[in-house]
Amino acid sequence: MEKDNLSLVLHSKDDLRLEQRPIPEPGADEVLLQMHSVGICGSDVHYWQHGRIGDFVLQKPMVLGHEAAGRVVKVGSAVTHLKPGDRVAIEPGVPREMDEFFKSGRYNLSPTIFFCATPPDDGNLCRYYKHNANFCYKLPDNVTYEEGALIEPLSVGIHACRRAGVTLGSSVFICGAGPIGLVTLLVAKSMGASQVLISDLSADRLAKAKELGADFLFPVKKEDIPQEMAKRVGGILGGMPHITIECTGVESSIQTAIFATRSGGVVVLVGLGAEMTTVPLVNAAVREVDIRGMFRYCNTWPMAISMLASKRVNVKPLVTHRFPLEQAVQAFETTRQGIGIKVMLKCDKNDQNP
Amino acid sequence: MEKDNLSLVLHSKDDLRLEQRPIPEPGADEVLLQMHSVGICGSDVHYWQHGRIGDFVLQKPMVLGHEAAGRVVKVGSAVTHLKPGDRVAIEPGVPREMDEFFKSGRYNLSPTIFFCATPPDDGNLCRYYKHNANFCYKLPDNVTYEEGALIEPLSVGIHACRRAGVTLGSSVFICGAGPIGLVTLLVAKSMGASQVLISDLSADRLAKAKELGADFLFPVKKEDIPQEMAKRVGGILGGMPHITIECTGVESSIQTAIFATRSGGVVVLVGLGAEMTTVPLVNAAVREVDIRGMFRYCNTWPMAISMLASKRVNVKPLVTHRFPLEQAVQAFETTRQGIGIKVMLKCDKNDQNP
Amino acid sequence: MEKDNLSLVLHSKDDLRLEQRPIPEPGADEVLLQMHSVGICGSDVHYWQHGRIGDFVLQKPMVLGHEAAGRVVKVGSAVTHLKPGDRVAIEPGVPREMDEFFKSGRYNLSPTIFFCATPPDDGNLCRYYKHNANFCYKLPDNVTYEEGALIEPLSVGIHACRRAGVTLGSSVFICGAGPIGLVTLLVAKSMGASQVLISDLSADRLAKAKELGADFLFPVKKEDIPQEMAKRVGGILGGMPHITIECTGVESSIQTAIFATRSGGVVVLVGLGAEMTTVPLVNAAVREVDIRGMFRYCNTWPMAISMLASKRVNVKPLVTHRFPLEQAVQAFETTRQGIGIKVMLKCDKNDQNP
Amino acid sequence: MEKDNLSLVLHSKDDLRLEQRPIPEPGADEVLLQMHSVGICGSDVHYWQHGRIGDFVLQKPMVLGHEAAGRVVKVGSAVTHLKPGDRVAIEPGVPREMDEFFKSGRYNLSPTIFFCATPPDDGNLCRYYKHNANFCYKLPDNVTYEEGALIEPLSVGIHACRRAGVTLGSSVFICGAGPIGLVTLLVAKSMGASQVLISDLSADRLAKAKELGADFLFPVKKEDIPQEMAKRVGGILGGMPHITIECTGVESSIQTAIFATRSGGVVVLVGLGAEMTTVPLVNAAVREVDIRGMFRYCNTWPMAISMLASKRVNVKPLVTHRFPLEQAVQAFETTRQGIGIKVMLKCDKNDQNP
Repeated sequence: MEKDNLSLVLHSKDDLRLEQRPIPEPGADEVLLQMHSVGICGSDVHYWQHGRIGDFVLQKPMVLGHEAAGRVVKVGSAVTHLKPGDRVAIEPGVPREMDEFFKSGRYNLSPTIFFCATPPDDGNLCRYYKHNANFCYKLPDNVTYEEGALIEPLSVGIHACRRAGVTLGSSVFICGAGPIGLVTLLVAKSMGASQVLISDLSADRLAKAKELGADFLFPVKKEDIPQEMAKRVGGILGGMPHITIECTGVESSIQTAIFATRSGGVVVLVGLGAEMTTVPLVNAAVREVDIRGMFRYCNTWPMAISMLASKRVNVKPLVTHRFPLEQAVQAFETTRQGIGIKVMLKCDKNDQNP
Repeated sequence: MEKDNLSLVLHSKDDLRLEQRPIPEPGADEVLLQMHSVGICGSDVHYWQHGRIGDFVLQKPMVLGHEAAGRVVKVGSAVTHLKPGDRVAIEPGVPREMDEFFKSGRYNLSPTIFFCATPPDDGNLCRYYKHNANFCYKLPDNVTYEEGALIEPLSVGIHACRRAGVTLGSSVFICGAGPIGLVTLLVAKSMGASQVLISDLSADRLAKAKELGADFLFPVKKEDIPQEMAKRVGGILGGMPHITIECTGVESSIQTAIFATRSGGVVVLVGLGAEMTTVPLVNAAVREVDIRGMFRYCNTWPMAISMLASKRVNVKPLVTHRFPLEQAVQAFETTRQGIGIKVMLKCDKNDQNP
Repeated sequence: MEKDNLSLVLHSKDDLRLEQRPIPEPGADEVLLQMHSVGICGSDVHYWQHGRIGDFVLQKPMVLGHEAAGRVVKVGSAVTHLKPGDRVAIEPGVPREMDEFFKSGRYNLSPTIFFCATPPDDGNLCRYYKHNANFCYKLPDNVTYEEGALIEPLSVGIHACRRAGVTLGSSVFICGAGPIGLVTLLVAKSMGASQVLISDLSADRLAKAKELGADFLFPVKKEDIPQEMAKRVGGILGGMPHITIECTGVESSIQTAIFATRSGGVVVLVGLGAEMTTVPLVNAAVREVDIRGMFRYCNTWPMAISMLASKRVNVKPLVTHRFPLEQAVQAFETTRQGIGIKVMLKCDKNDQNP
Repeated sequence: MEKDNLSLVLHSKDDLRLEQRPIPEPGADEVLLQMHSVGICGSDVHYWQHGRIGDFVLQKPMVLGHEAAGRVVKVGSAVTHLKPGDRVAIEPGVPREMDEFFKSGRYNLSPTIFFCATPPDDGNLCRYYKHNANFCYKLPDNVTYEEGALIEPLSVGIHACRRAGVTLGSSVFICGAGPIGLVTLLVAKSMGASQVLISDLSADRLAKAKELGADFLFPVKKEDIPQEMAKRVGGILGGMPHITIECTGVESSIQTAIFATRSGGVVVLVGLGAEMTTVPLVNAAVREVDIRGMFRYCNTWPMAISMLASKRVNVKPLVTHRFPLEQAVQAFETTRQGIGIKVMLKCDKNDQNP
């Protein structure tokens, strides 16, 4: 049996190390996976730089990584739907309790949920990782490992668009063309949105959005006035959008989102900013513009796989950089500098293909 | 034919007059009504005191009143479902255009809607008033005119509870025990809420709430801290409420509403305060607590009549004062001083019964 | 430790025996319960009389009973929310797999679900029974064991009314005033239905329905013609009902249900009859009357407990007979003869109270 | 002013005539349209062949045609959103009353609705036609008249997919590849369905479905057994479909639809057959497979225009034949023989372009 389980471990703020960890043994409901491709998320970098995100504080060394796909190498005694050799995408959140949230289909809200690379739970930036088999989804032959890993950010876009109620003919305004804004764009188009307008400070990001199918681009500046921006949104789209999906967390952008959205529409908050935010709540209220946040996602992997398998959505252009696991720190540095869109770490020494 | 059409006309801020107006002639789709009972709403008083509400500014004399019931005395040529003598409750909002909002069942959001006693549209605090017959609903014999007039505030409660998704077993926190908080309480209980907790600064109002069926009372003080109040709400209810319906518009109360609501739940904003409000938006977002406002109501009269006819809800205790139309100014003064709950004006000289 | 675990075991069609079984040992996620009150359901009797229900065929001896409440006597190592002495109601269906149905909040549809007294799974008509702790719900002090046991049939009514979308002001037609029709009546009223009309062949059952709050009774005869019955329903209610809940499974009654329901409304099928049924499908289709079935229930226990604790629904009148467990066969015979409404078996020798 | 108003009038069963009718004068809320393109629908042919459809019986001569687009030539006094020269698509159903259905956004269910070419209401297979301006929708420059006319059949597909709840990743089985099955296919793909399987007796129709984007074809024979066909559906899709949309109205196909659909899924009935239908209702009920019909559509034109304008759906390949209005009878004969998919009549002598 293989002994090498090189793992990317965050020991404390700024202290990121590649080190060996024992290869775990899967429990009855678990599978042991040989990791193949793991994307770097902004939150991984945030833990590295700050040692915490909100109330989640790193208190002991933790393996990073939660956008992942790998190959089953061992199955627990109770696992029936997977077998060694199966290629799988990993849903990083696994509810620990059958509580009211899980029972009602919103397990992402379960306060005791396990989640890869959220303290104190280890992630999967390593060679070998075990996971609850019910949250490992078999990939069809025509879906690559990297596509499998990208299901995680894609799920954020799916959950955002579902919370927003995007449907046939929806007119959608997306604030922010970072990785999450871009996957949201892809999903909104796939769900039938007829017009998607996307905003960003960066011309490069907007160019990428154009390439990925945005119908309209909206370059913005920090000093823009929310109510004026809202008017321009309506002007570009020939009417206020039904839905605005806010992916920046910036207060003025949230204000713009509310002012811009059509009466009876929805603003979904994906980006998170300061705890207390000043917003035009009366404007939203009297126009019945609903404000909905979201926490991660639930029930997205099967539909995402089905979309990827049928080639209804193309996430491949999101991967702009690849590094072998051994160069993980350099890969993290690339993401930290905001270069490219998605950096992918290749964890299998013998197969560095997409 | 009767000539007396004494009407309560607001000429400008602070200038409220009882004066004669011509009795109108109903159009093809309209009915002429002899008004019977009209409740005074906080908004009527607000126009009197300030001459405006938000963007709605009084620019010419306007008849006040929009919580109303009366008797059909004449029907337009195209009206088939009503006849002289029918007792009706009046829905004050009548869409003028078959726009996207009307066609999709949310006519309250139609920007060109007619609405009684909202500038420049006249209300029905008068002897004779004409209205679109499709928005006049026949009252069964066992529903009084005053109950008919109270359908208007009751509709606010219905729309709030529907927007909130109150259902069997819902645990509901209502902020504010004024007239709207109280009708919301009545409706929430009727829709199956198992626990309703209601807060207010005033012990008198809370006592009335108790009388109307509140399960728990929560006396609050202006200086209370939102997060602490939220904890106390959860303590009283033995768990966070699924739904919070905010009827005060006060910033700290809106903050409390968000902190207090269970993950995956809903905060409905009924009370309106300052245009810009500072709220714990991240707290709401990451717990998927949806924030929904509301504008008036739609599609509530038939269900309200059906509830009143079957005695499933009792609004009669809300009426604490009655004045003949001739004493309208005194009646407005009573409401202005915050005395009692609902003041009813009796517009029919020959029938001042409930 | 107690040794007596008298259990009611169905060995095969017609062969029902009271016999001793070993007291089970709870697993890590389980609790051992001392059973207190267990209601007899029509399905228990059906297994006794026919040895099967549809595809569920008795192939080895099975303990009957699934409407149950008891007291915790031992908790598994992983159980934290219950402790010995807690009084609990038992949800008889426990999903075995985290499949797509469970993950999306519809675990009742999971094909591998465990369900008490459905072959091959044992029920809880015995002295001691172990169950997954996550599906045991603590009863407040003011809710009796029998009320706890009645949550099972009540859940059928809750699921039916939820599937139907009963809400404030709904006009509801219930076909059949047997135990399920009666709990559906109770729930529909609690959810805000303003008018409930209930039909039955038996005057006695209708009288009970009247006692439990039915607004209108509709005595029917086997030879009645569906379209004529539908007209009479509309006549009694002063308009077609929004919702019809069919609890008989009889073909002509299902036909009546469809014809009777208002355009845009819903027919819920609770009663089950012949596999193939002839129905006026075009009539339903062109009036957008949706036809929805249901399989047991999910996510009902917490709301049911909350309704019982707040005295918003009163199920106590449903219990018409009580027998000690030792007289279980006589109790089953009572149910088989259709005497009374709900027969309750008392499993605790030392406490035969409600 | 033009005098020619050649119109295709059905006088009685089998008696179809081209004759002159006076050019109508638009009322205050109406526009006069110069008709451009009108598609022939199966229902037009059915009235011609049978003189009735269900309860709708031709009792006086009626102009046929309801899939239409034209150019505004005159506007009524109250019309503000259209002007002469505007190119518009016509929604043929116009509610006459503000009844409960219209007020709640389901105006297609309003029993008094006006509908083109449904007795006794005239259609628009003529040179000049007047229509309620609120149900005429301006076409953008990049949408042709024929696309505008095709919004009518497209709306059937939209309403079917909305009633079905098609969304991202849905697996959909469509029974029947006639014009309605094909537009449903187009819409389902646009709404995010990842897999669409379509069945038909005809290899030609299936070939057209393939061309329009069907993922899987399912050639069927009249003598096929429903339960076996259902199994084959699951086999082809690698799992039962979430949604089945039945477009044939054939009893055995409806039975297949029910057996084939995944638990918790939806069957939408678009095709209409015999009034009484024998179906496996228990199978549907215990698996919570909802059965939903539909009547025409509502609120589809704006989203359809938006989809056509953004090139998200391509309906052009549906038009297989074109005839000038003068050859209308020959055109009807073509449709009657089932040749091609959609036959388009060109009503403007001076512009016979698409």
